[in-house]
Amino acid sequence: MPTEGSDRVALSLSGERLAAVYRIQAADQAEAVARARDICLEQTVELPDALIPNAAIREQIVGAVDGLAAAGDGAWDLSIRYPVEAAGGELTQLLNLLFGNVALQPGVRLMDFHLPEGLLGSIRGPRFGIAGLRDLLAVHDRPLLCTALKPMGLRPRALARLAYELALGGIDLIKDDHGLADQCFCPFDERVARCAEAVQRANGETGRHCLYLPNLTAPAHLVQARARAASAAGAGGALFCPGLAGLDAMRMLADDGGLDLPILSHPAFVGGLAVSPTAGLSHAVLYGRLNRLAGADAAIFPHLGGRFAFTEDDCREVRNGCIDAMGRLAPIFPVPAGGMTLARVRELCDFYGRDVMLLVGGDLHALAPGEDLVKRCRRFVALATGGSD
Amino acid sequence: MPTEGSDRVALSLSGERLAAVYRIQAADQAEAVARARDICLEQTVELPDALIPNAAIREQIVGAVDGLAAAGDGAWDLSIRYPVEAAGGELTQLLNLLFGNVALQPGVRLMDFHLPEGLLGSIRGPRFGIAGLRDLLAVHDRPLLCTALKPMGLRPRALARLAYELALGGIDLIKDDHGLADQCFCPFDERVARCAEAVQRANGETGRHCLYLPNLTAPAHLVQARARAASAAGAGGALFCPGLAGLDAMRMLADDGGLDLPILSHPAFVGGLAVSPTAGLSHAVLYGRLNRLAGADAAIFPHLGGRFAFTEDDCREVRNGCIDAMGRLAPIFPVPAGGMTLARVRELCDFYGRDVMLLVGGDLHALAPGEDLVKRCRRFVALATGGSD
Repeated sequence: MPTEGSDRVALSLSGERLAAVYRIQAADQAEAVARARDICLEQTVELPDALIPNAAIREQIVGAVDGLAAAGDGAWDLSIRYPVEAAGGELTQLLNLLFGNVALQPGVRLMDFHLPEGLLGSIRGPRFGIAGLRDLLAVHDRPLLCTALKPMGLRPRALARLAYELALGGIDLIKDDHGLADQCFCPFDERVARCAEAVQRANGETGRHCLYLPNLTAPAHLVQARARAASAAGAGGALFCPGLAGLDAMRMLADDGGLDLPILSHPAFVGGLAVSPTAGLSHAVLYGRLNRLAGADAAIFPHLGGRFAFTEDDCREVRNGCIDAMGRLAPIFPVPAGGMTLARVRELCDFYGRDVMLLVGGDLHALAPGEDLVKRCRRFVALATGGSD
Repeated sequence: MPTEGSDRVALSLSGERLAAVYRIQAADQAEAVARARDICLEQTVELPDALIPNAAIREQIVGAVDGLAAAGDGAWDLSIRYPVEAAGGELTQLLNLLFGNVALQPGVRLMDFHLPEGLLGSIRGPRFGIAGLRDLLAVHDRPLLCTALKPMGLRPRALARLAYELALGGIDLIKDDHGLADQCFCPFDERVARCAEAVQRANGETGRHCLYLPNLTAPAHLVQARARAASAAGAGGALFCPGLAGLDAMRMLADDGGLDLPILSHPAFVGGLAVSPTAGLSHAVLYGRLNRLAGADAAIFPHLGGRFAFTEDDCREVRNGCIDAMGRLAPIFPVPAGGMTLARVRELCDFYGRDVMLLVGGDLHALAPGEDLVKRCRRFVALATGGSD
């Protein structure tokens, strides 16, 4: 490749860098050093060092190792700094810079990342976050309570009746099950109109501010249209599955000032990205930080002991990814879910503290003798407010 | 949950089903049967059986086990049939139905899926496929040859000079490196205009039909605009990273009759989804079938022995996912890549046969004494045509 003389001096980058923190596997220090250098090249120029055409690119574009330390058992903690300009101000390319190609290599896991203030300042992030969502709901003194409209197969009218009773019982956020899309037996427009109306009617009776969050996970060319239709129909927020419809599609909704809807992110499809401890993304990044970057106000994930297999450490990591400092980006609600029951509400409150959104689905419908859905919801509220069962 | 009497008879589904094939882990037959039933519920109603509100939903919506057989070592092959209407005619919801929630569970891997003709008939899939891309390039007698414009950090003018030489040397498809987005040092519009012009100029000299494929991986609200700008500037195709920008965003480009561009899919970011043999998606599904469903005409993946860690079986699986029968959806080119060299061209041709697209990046720039880039490209062509080195 010819040396590009004019490029040598002309890159003129700011020198500002973002940092990616990886856990890599290597047999010894020499191998770890070589792998670290390979990742610096792989994530930027995708060329061996000898083929880099000029010094400006080698010095200003290629990632730079910022730290490498043995972490035991053949693992190494590696920090690499990349030029902020390489991310091009786009979330899609930022993801690529942090973990695009190395996602295909074994023994490299993205543990965390740190963006400089300048870059963070260009990212809106969560429109509401914990504080904004609490204000919207006028609930400041307890965990937020969420449930899902289900099952797939119920008609819009039946789902709306459920929504009405759930809102009457004191649930704060009622989301579509994420399997409700625009099926012939439950068309999006009719469902959203009926459910939004039902929740507003219940709010008129209770004086509360329950939000209905339809599922806006949709084909790429329909996401914005469904969001606008939902907003016009009186929906109070959005459920979105970035693993199905794209992380940046969620970012687009969060950035849309014409919508102004809080967003609840659902982790459908992406589980495999965190499942191997030596590959993929950490739970903090996948379920926490990326959702925040892309504007979610709350992030659903499977809590330990439910129908899924997260550990206590995994769950703590997600929580940290949701609330740890991240420049000016608001902290967001962790939403432990996946088979949670009323019997576990106190345990969940103890584990996550007050700033958690509790998502109980099926168990709200497992009525005790003499109980109806409204009563059972009130029991959920009482438990989350500190009452005993 | 109240029984919805009117829903009992009113679902009126066609009875047509799509099939998902999973590999699950279970200690014994009883556990396997229980897991199979749980997946049927998890992927549809997300409720325990006892809480399903009516018989119509239980019979028409819930998945049905179609086959369960021991596969050795605690693994079981499981086939589940879901109603086609549950997918709602949308790729996003189809992904969710096949693997949304169970992606978060350990010991469940999506191995394959089969869509009935009716559903496949509503999916356009690859606009060109192997035959269409060969016609476009007027190359029918050998593997197609692809390379990447790199590295990040070169200016549009320097990349265009490279593109000209690569086209002159006989490369069939010249793609942007997928790290080229819209960075300040290499703006999208200028790069695409210059590189498209350079390739067209070379085509004018050679009489060939080399295509330039800019990277259309972009923020959700910009994908269509960049695609139209690229098409207007004379680009001959698109590079797209569905893992970064969403699988359905690629489908949207493929379905866009106003574009009519072949699409090369790049696997950035998604590697972790296939890495565990007991979780995630099979290589055939992740790198082959999903790309085809979403309209890619060729799918890049890391070939064994390069900078990544695919096995021979993994690579064969990807190839099968690209070319095995899939209703009326065209077969597409497998594109083995990730550190391939001229020295391996014959081996790659032997492994994949003639219907392969060979992607050689950095090694095209590792010039031998007395060789220039044009000459080295001609050597690549000669090797792929059956010549020896």
